[in-house]
Amino acid sequence: MVENAIASLEDDVNLNAGYGSNLTLNGMVECDAAIMEGISSDFGSVGAVSGIKNPIRLARSLLEYSRIPDTLGRIPPLLLVSEGALSFAALHAPHVQTVPPERLISWRAEAEWKKWKDQIEYSHPTDSPGGGSGPGEMQDTVGAVSWHPEKGMAAGVSSGGILLKYPGRVGEAAVFGAGCWVHQSTEAGMGIACSVSGVGEYITRAALARTIGENFASHMSEGIDFSPHDILHKVIMDNFWQPSVRRGILQLDVGVLLLASELDKDGNVKARLWCAFTTPSMAIAYASSKNPKPKAVILRRPTGIPVPIRNNNSSQIFITAISL
Amino acid sequence: MVENAIASLEDDVNLNAGYGSNLTLNGMVECDAAIMEGISSDFGSVGAVSGIKNPIRLARSLLEYSRIPDTLGRIPPLLLVSEGALSFAALHAPHVQTVPPERLISWRAEAEWKKWKDQIEYSHPTDSPGGGSGPGEMQDTVGAVSWHPEKGMAAGVSSGGILLKYPGRVGEAAVFGAGCWVHQSTEAGMGIACSVSGVGEYITRAALARTIGENFASHMSEGIDFSPHDILHKVIMDNFWQPSVRRGILQLDVGVLLLASELDKDGNVKARLWCAFTTPSMAIAYASSKNPKPKAVILRRPTGIPVPIRNNNSSQIFITAISL
Repeated sequence: MVENAIASLEDDVNLNAGYGSNLTLNGMVECDAAIMEGISSDFGSVGAVSGIKNPIRLARSLLEYSRIPDTLGRIPPLLLVSEGALSFAALHAPHVQTVPPERLISWRAEAEWKKWKDQIEYSHPTDSPGGGSGPGEMQDTVGAVSWHPEKGMAAGVSSGGILLKYPGRVGEAAVFGAGCWVHQSTEAGMGIACSVSGVGEYITRAALARTIGENFASHMSEGIDFSPHDILHKVIMDNFWQPSVRRGILQLDVGVLLLASELDKDGNVKARLWCAFTTPSMAIAYASSKNPKPKAVILRRPTGIPVPIRNNNSSQIFITAISL
Repeated sequence: MVENAIASLEDDVNLNAGYGSNLTLNGMVECDAAIMEGISSDFGSVGAVSGIKNPIRLARSLLEYSRIPDTLGRIPPLLLVSEGALSFAALHAPHVQTVPPERLISWRAEAEWKKWKDQIEYSHPTDSPGGGSGPGEMQDTVGAVSWHPEKGMAAGVSSGGILLKYPGRVGEAAVFGAGCWVHQSTEAGMGIACSVSGVGEYITRAALARTIGENFASHMSEGIDFSPHDILHKVIMDNFWQPSVRRGILQLDVGVLLLASELDKDGNVKARLWCAFTTPSMAIAYASSKNPKPKAVILRRPTGIPVPIRNNNSSQIFITAISL
């Protein structure tokens, strides 16, 4: 489910993943993607890959490959990058569609690239954009979380990275624990699946998806009532926002998608989708067995609550939950 | 200091880093390396790079580059891989020596590669080696930790990865938080620097250097007496050994180098070098201002304590400390 959902988003020209991704410094598309499964904790990711139509499908292939015992006892890789990932695809994932790398470049991405590339080459440094209007602002990275009655939970993430990034840059979407995380308890009905996008290097430093997941899991396993809202807020502040501010970072965009299931007092499974973001808006879609018709929503920061004041140490995170 | 120490080890043909590294499935050297600094928390790493004589120097260049404000507000990369890392070197690190990739292949590494490659191609699967004698056993990855009176602490790691790895595989030595970690307290004299090598994918899953470092740091900051030996043992067991055993992993090699400094009751700085390993031996060298002459030692599991019983859930970690 996660693989197919993310593949659809990768194919959308408006989103920064797969076709239509931001371009690197040398004008190419290079993608990162990762997928993780809850019951097995199996994981697969690819970094800085060009010419793969759906990077998430290659990450999934790596996850599946890791389940096959190796005759020489080698540990299967968590992360394959660049040409090596393409060689793996050719050998072990022939169903993963390759395309000429330039086919993933959209008209809009190329126009944006030219605009900022010119800034680098012809402008005085003082003409360059500051935080808030720079190329780093365009980060519509994609992610998905799911819960299947038999197969359990899964989470994934896919990104084209920041505009004008150095070729070979690997961001949070390929790093174990950073962009996606799943923890499924041995107790039936309890689990969390998390997908995170935003300022990649700081999400990696925070190991944000994992840190959120582990905090939720430890509170759930204690069996005491806790406020998921407060946990989410505290983890993002302590591990992502404040350390970034201390390092003088002006761009603190992050979006978190968190599926949490637990048993209520009567032993019924209660599942909620939590969304947390520091951006002006966050677009989501969801469906469940109770409400199988997919519903798409653009969550917006409520009027009256200002867009985050950059470089401010106070809380600027908007959090909401949807019962599924 | 860390950069130069690791560069020397990379140049040693007997160690699995730089020249003499294990070869990939297609017979090439591909290296991972990372370096982190305590006071700034700055970090730089490279993954799956070929044709760089000393990968640690390129990781250091990335760390230094991250300190330069970017005119477009782009966040500097934590990790660059493959060809992209080489392009970065050509542009921003001309002092980093490139060599024809085949120059990093040693006679011994090529012989080992041929031996196991033939096993894959000509043997029946049942002839292949099981855990304990497979190609994954040859993992003499290198690391270093240091403490400079003004510049503070630093840690680094460099590895050629596992023999016959897939090209493009990025291991713990390039992943933030996995292979090296430094935490320097704002309180004078307190800090830890950690470097870890071993089974890369499981060190990455455990974020082992960081998890060890954060546990030490939190105990130190509480100001209560604690047993570093017990902390080290517990963190390795809970985060690396047991999760790996649960996943059915037979090779649990790990080596940890940990420099910890704290104030004793009289306010004097006390620095110790902790070594923890599950392998039969671990080779280290150290020097300090009190004892400036470098001393090299091969630590061996004491007789009477057996080499770890693979796939056993009981403690098999040997830990020792050296006062500096």
